[in-house]
Amino acid sequence: MLSSKFLKKRKSLVSSDDFNVDNLYEILNLASDIYREPKKYSNLCNGYVLASLFFEPSTRTRLSFESAMLRLGGSVVSIPEPNVSSVTKGESLKDTIKTVSQYSDIIVMRHSQEGSAELAAINSDVPFINAGDGGHQHPTQTLTDLLTIKQCLNRLDNLVISVCGDLKFGRTVHSLVKTLSKFPNNKFIFISPEELEIPEYIKNDLIKKNIEFKEVRTIEEVIDKVDILYMTRIQRERFFNEAEYMRLKDSFVLDNKKMSLAKEDMIVLHPLPRVNEIAEEVDDDNRAKYFKQVKYGMIVRMALILKFLEVM
Amino acid sequence: MLSSKFLKKRKSLVSSDDFNVDNLYEILNLASDIYREPKKYSNLCNGYVLASLFFEPSTRTRLSFESAMLRLGGSVVSIPEPNVSSVTKGESLKDTIKTVSQYSDIIVMRHSQEGSAELAAINSDVPFINAGDGGHQHPTQTLTDLLTIKQCLNRLDNLVISVCGDLKFGRTVHSLVKTLSKFPNNKFIFISPEELEIPEYIKNDLIKKNIEFKEVRTIEEVIDKVDILYMTRIQRERFFNEAEYMRLKDSFVLDNKKMSLAKEDMIVLHPLPRVNEIAEEVDDDNRAKYFKQVKYGMIVRMALILKFLEVM
Amino acid sequence: MLSSKFLKKRKSLVSSDDFNVDNLYEILNLASDIYREPKKYSNLCNGYVLASLFFEPSTRTRLSFESAMLRLGGSVVSIPEPNVSSVTKGESLKDTIKTVSQYSDIIVMRHSQEGSAELAAINSDVPFINAGDGGHQHPTQTLTDLLTIKQCLNRLDNLVISVCGDLKFGRTVHSLVKTLSKFPNNKFIFISPEELEIPEYIKNDLIKKNIEFKEVRTIEEVIDKVDILYMTRIQRERFFNEAEYMRLKDSFVLDNKKMSLAKEDMIVLHPLPRVNEIAEEVDDDNRAKYFKQVKYGMIVRMALILKFLEVM
Repeated sequence: MLSSKFLKKRKSLVSSDDFNVDNLYEILNLASDIYREPKKYSNLCNGYVLASLFFEPSTRTRLSFESAMLRLGGSVVSIPEPNVSSVTKGESLKDTIKTVSQYSDIIVMRHSQEGSAELAAINSDVPFINAGDGGHQHPTQTLTDLLTIKQCLNRLDNLVISVCGDLKFGRTVHSLVKTLSKFPNNKFIFISPEELEIPEYIKNDLIKKNIEFKEVRTIEEVIDKVDILYMTRIQRERFFNEAEYMRLKDSFVLDNKKMSLAKEDMIVLHPLPRVNEIAEEVDDDNRAKYFKQVKYGMIVRMALILKFLEVM
Repeated sequence: MLSSKFLKKRKSLVSSDDFNVDNLYEILNLASDIYREPKKYSNLCNGYVLASLFFEPSTRTRLSFESAMLRLGGSVVSIPEPNVSSVTKGESLKDTIKTVSQYSDIIVMRHSQEGSAELAAINSDVPFINAGDGGHQHPTQTLTDLLTIKQCLNRLDNLVISVCGDLKFGRTVHSLVKTLSKFPNNKFIFISPEELEIPEYIKNDLIKKNIEFKEVRTIEEVIDKVDILYMTRIQRERFFNEAEYMRLKDSFVLDNKKMSLAKEDMIVLHPLPRVNEIAEEVDDDNRAKYFKQVKYGMIVRMALILKFLEVM
Repeated sequence: MLSSKFLKKRKSLVSSDDFNVDNLYEILNLASDIYREPKKYSNLCNGYVLASLFFEPSTRTRLSFESAMLRLGGSVVSIPEPNVSSVTKGESLKDTIKTVSQYSDIIVMRHSQEGSAELAAINSDVPFINAGDGGHQHPTQTLTDLLTIKQCLNRLDNLVISVCGDLKFGRTVHSLVKTLSKFPNNKFIFISPEELEIPEYIKNDLIKKNIEFKEVRTIEEVIDKVDILYMTRIQRERFFNEAEYMRLKDSFVLDNKKMSLAKEDMIVLHPLPRVNEIAEEVDDDNRAKYFKQVKYGMIVRMALILKFLEVM
């Protein structure tokens, strides 16, 4: 059983900050076993109903959670693409969650308002998983990233991790860096334009923990040294001006030319959807793991559901 | 087996008027047993498909029916939030229902047009349940209310039932009063502003049946005498003028102060969603049964599905 | 096992042109057995997940596929009525399909763009079925028509097939004629106004294959000679002018008067939805098979899913 407060108190998962290293290994080890022997797990959630509440559309996340539950033998009721008003007719989120708790055994929710996940978790009578609120950071993305790394590289420590793109606003990246910094001897390389550097508070946290990191401006100068290249999107409108964007954009696009400089066993990750920051030609390189990452996302959600329903 | 015409002829449920006391006890007794031992029933609908047709959105009702079917081991196909035009491309409701009958073993439908449930019931080749048409009265809400009363108070007769709020337009209330008046020795207290009194035809029906009732203007003056306080919403725009609304509104809001006057074993019900007619502080009072009522709603729908599919 | 290229290479079905007569009999014979003994097949897809991607709404087709999968014991994740943008956030269809391939064991897709099915089939890592792209021709409609004929008339050859309505733009009809012309000794009668005659390329194909056909302007003049009357809708706006429409429209409406001229064992088919081209009075004639056709549509999709998942 998971031991952290988030599970003991209310069996809810709101933020990836809730995890400690033991929690993470417990979930990831179970996920690895599910990946190896899915049949063993295919009936464990028979008779359980997951409520999939997407008050803000996010089809890929929704399908991932729903497939996870179905592959465990459970069932799903779904609010696939609602406008909130029709769901709630003016009622409070508290009442909505209380109500859905009566129909279901576990709730997954995505909501546009920051803080809504915490509010829902407190009021749910059944286990609750945050699938994104407000800034769209959601803890199961971090679990997905970790499982992919563990499966591909057989470890979560002693890694050189580079993250590339919009490091200022990308909450997926913030959460990943904070979580990977809990494991021993990891080093970070931040690849971004000056305008989109990783925030000071994250750098200060790394300094305090005595964790090595550096900041660079191009993929080329570091790709030969990294175990992981974690790519993210850069939105054009985040640049100071168009000229700057045109000058810099190729530095943050991965293609086969840059891949030719990387180590044999490096892996490329991306939270998807991508736009053009990874050229399609890279898809055929077997170091490209971003579609595999999608599958691991479903697997790690299976592990989480099993833990929360206490059938494991 | 149910004996009333609605079931014998076409196995459809259109209006709560279709029930007699024997039908009601048959469904409610089965529901009580499902509540007690859900595992006994968890595979009885294996292989059956319920079509959940919500031509008008009503998420809580839809999720309740879908969870009910899934908890019986059945499957669900769903039209969750449609615009009618895309469903039907101009075809008649008759053809739509005939078509869906080919895919499914039982149909649940909500539709904005009064009379559409009757039309659908006639044309369906499989059992049909009305989940609301037009005025949104739907017979499974009345079953929900009755099961909650039976479970909480152990009887459906010898009750003092007060209903509060908009008693003029609230069809949920009309249906509940008519149905509870079929059981012996029930008395009614109607709490409403003058503008929103219970309709004459319902009062006449009670007089004809020699059933005791009275009408009052505040919760306070009667709450100590009732077994059930059934709360409903009052819409601001139903009042003659804003001044009237401001003067009266607190008389129809339930809070802990009013609850302190009530009997120990009184129960508070509400069809939900509420807006502000029950203060949140009341939720922690164990006489507040409106969320429990949601669960009983799902349970009684399970009983109904079992009866209609004739697997019980 | 099916032997044609479409199945061998990538287990995908994009166009009904992919079928040869052996493929067709293999699927249809399996479908006939499913119709006869559905229980035999009700658990064969346990543990499999079908992704139902309707990027363009088509509720009847979606429900048919989803019911088919559920009746085989499988599960469904669904995009029921999306706007494409929210699904993909600017990503390519290729990436969307690659992603959904990670969650699911088989994909069914409907999309508004011509060619999207081919593109999706190439990029899917799991079996893929086209449920309509662009012109909305979809191969499972043709399979539906064929199964209905086989079940009702016990043969797919030696038939006189009349098709009535808009034969110019109706791709359902084009596909049906091409497919039925692969079976020996079938004859065709085309009933349409001059403006909406069957295209030259189809007539040329029939001539080349030495297949007998004729073109007429009214149902009455041929209905006594046909085994099948396949009705389709005529859109008012397809006529040259309103006067022409008023003069001609009754010639293409089927009613009991015309039915009285037909053979005892003739069958009437329609891909549905109908508007008014078949009078409702015809529904009670036991030669009217268009609702039965809906059920056969689900059955033949069950056969296809079984073949593609290789559980049969």
